[in-house]
Amino acid sequence: MSQKTPAPDFSNWSCPLPLADYPTIVMGHGGGGKLGNELVEHLFLPAFRNTALENLGDAAVLELPFDGKASRIAMSTDSFVVQPLFFPGGNIGELAVNGTVNDLAVSGAIPRYLTAGFILEEGFPLAQLAAIVQAMAAAARTAGVQIVTGDTKVVERGHGDGVYISTAGVGLVREGLSVGPHRAQPGDVVLVSGSIGDHGMAIMSLREGLEFESQIRSDCAALNGLIGDVLTAVGPAVHAMRDPTRGGLASTLNEIAASSGVGVQIEEALLPVHSEVQAACELLGLDPVYVANEGKVVLFVAPEAADRALDVLRAHPLGREAARIGQVTAEHPRMLVARTMLGANRVIPTQIGEQLPRIC
Amino acid sequence: MSQKTPAPDFSNWSCPLPLADYPTIVMGHGGGGKLGNELVEHLFLPAFRNTALENLGDAAVLELPFDGKASRIAMSTDSFVVQPLFFPGGNIGELAVNGTVNDLAVSGAIPRYLTAGFILEEGFPLAQLAAIVQAMAAAARTAGVQIVTGDTKVVERGHGDGVYISTAGVGLVREGLSVGPHRAQPGDVVLVSGSIGDHGMAIMSLREGLEFESQIRSDCAALNGLIGDVLTAVGPAVHAMRDPTRGGLASTLNEIAASSGVGVQIEEALLPVHSEVQAACELLGLDPVYVANEGKVVLFVAPEAADRALDVLRAHPLGREAARIGQVTAEHPRMLVARTMLGANRVIPTQIGEQLPRIC
Repeated sequence: MSQKTPAPDFSNWSCPLPLADYPTIVMGHGGGGKLGNELVEHLFLPAFRNTALENLGDAAVLELPFDGKASRIAMSTDSFVVQPLFFPGGNIGELAVNGTVNDLAVSGAIPRYLTAGFILEEGFPLAQLAAIVQAMAAAARTAGVQIVTGDTKVVERGHGDGVYISTAGVGLVREGLSVGPHRAQPGDVVLVSGSIGDHGMAIMSLREGLEFESQIRSDCAALNGLIGDVLTAVGPAVHAMRDPTRGGLASTLNEIAASSGVGVQIEEALLPVHSEVQAACELLGLDPVYVANEGKVVLFVAPEAADRALDVLRAHPLGREAARIGQVTAEHPRMLVARTMLGANRVIPTQIGEQLPRIC
Repeated sequence: MSQKTPAPDFSNWSCPLPLADYPTIVMGHGGGGKLGNELVEHLFLPAFRNTALENLGDAAVLELPFDGKASRIAMSTDSFVVQPLFFPGGNIGELAVNGTVNDLAVSGAIPRYLTAGFILEEGFPLAQLAAIVQAMAAAARTAGVQIVTGDTKVVERGHGDGVYISTAGVGLVREGLSVGPHRAQPGDVVLVSGSIGDHGMAIMSLREGLEFESQIRSDCAALNGLIGDVLTAVGPAVHAMRDPTRGGLASTLNEIAASSGVGVQIEEALLPVHSEVQAACELLGLDPVYVANEGKVVLFVAPEAADRALDVLRAHPLGREAARIGQVTAEHPRMLVARTMLGANRVIPTQIGEQLPRIC
């Protein structure tokens, strides 16, 4: 037998993705929208099928048997491909640490340990790598986590983009919580911990060369301290939490509405949006509700605890601009509806694909 | 203030890497050799400094407090950039699962949960992605682990190479073991679980278009079952274990010699090398001791338990070609010395950089 090229034969393969016009990856598969969701639902889930994965939380909650008793940990991962690597308010390294810390935190876990995998491009300046690594170390210290193991691969010049980083994290699950994207209930108040759209518009303004009176800075931050304060104060009253990254606030609220089978009603007038972010969005024809955040959390809180939760958020440096933006309704289940400044209602759907590529 | 490009100024940066001729990433930084080691020692370790990381095991061993008691887990990560994506004996998906499973297993842990991060290139055929995902699922089932959470990013056509995969894993630490790269002792017997060089030469033969009587297949496999059998039989007698991936057997043995401050003496005549791998190595001017394996483990075992360990290895389907290849000496500390077929001794150093790029 002679050596054969082992490229498998895919000629009879039938694409299971309903939205795929042609059976290849498009930029939209990396967005926070429907294309990305269907990749998960029709390709990853059927293959990997297990309870932890099927919950589709930001982190998986897992059991480990210690002393004959099941102890629970949370586990999460994210890969980062943002361009440019350095931006106002942060760089890819801080994003990689905070992104995984936040995925654990919004699942109600206490982040503890992170891993970091680097895919480096031949020719990438070591000075930039060192700056990114220093930023990761500082972000880890701020978040109170340790980066305990890692891996480095190098690809030829022209592949990759300087550096891609994948982080994974493990956290301790807080017991006594009932938080999850499927637990929002009619009556819940929707809170956001601060202004929306900053991260995405910091990146886009940079790419587009937009100039404003004041610079738009990424909100990249670790949310575990802020979330810890809220959980300490009103723990069991928090029904759902998520950090609205790719796809922005709109995708996050739609996901929770769908998971919980409820309607979400927000007030556009109540959304905290910085004026320069609003201006940049208008220039580029974007809606801030679809723009990525990297240091914000959305909380669904039982009504009797909402004021207290808002006070706690505002008392934290990362939550000073926290706002009540809407509530959960039994009406229009699985839909996100916004009352506009003019008093009309409009449905805010999940987008199909990627409005802003390579944002994280 | 107008928007400024935030690219940091690196003009005064002084490169801390002794071997760096010019301060950029070179392919060798991704190899199993000295360049990769110095990236870790002079850049990652000083920044991330913590006990778990400094042990430089294949997995980090970590404490989690459950019920007021410290329980231990192991955690590991690896990124995969192999080209081509499909090769005889496996594909990048199996490699990504087995690689992380094996890093946990050689640390003495029982692998349980994996995460998977995908960096996909725009235009990548979904059929190939589906095949890779199916292979990952099958590999996870075989290894007895679950893939519990994941992430997908997409980069523009021309960046990336179809798909890069990063996996991270968590395992349960077996108590009562004293295994670690620093625990090899003079007198220990060095065992290898089977033939060396298969994975690297499967990839290289494919890239170079070499043809042989029988096809060279990657040895890609999950070793946790095999290693579990050995630990059950002779647990505390196993002093060090490692899977000789990038940089091959030579790098692994050099690392253990250096960590333990001992000499390692092997016999070339005892190294199991398949004839077609030997032939391919000779054609390409390579030494099989430097070629990557993806389904082999090297064990340092106390002499009184070595025969039993070898019997157990050979009784497992993945260990049928296991062999005793040498022993640990107090002489020539921190060096790997091979007695050649002609009876002479030669030092086998760690290579500087990357003999075979993009092999995993």
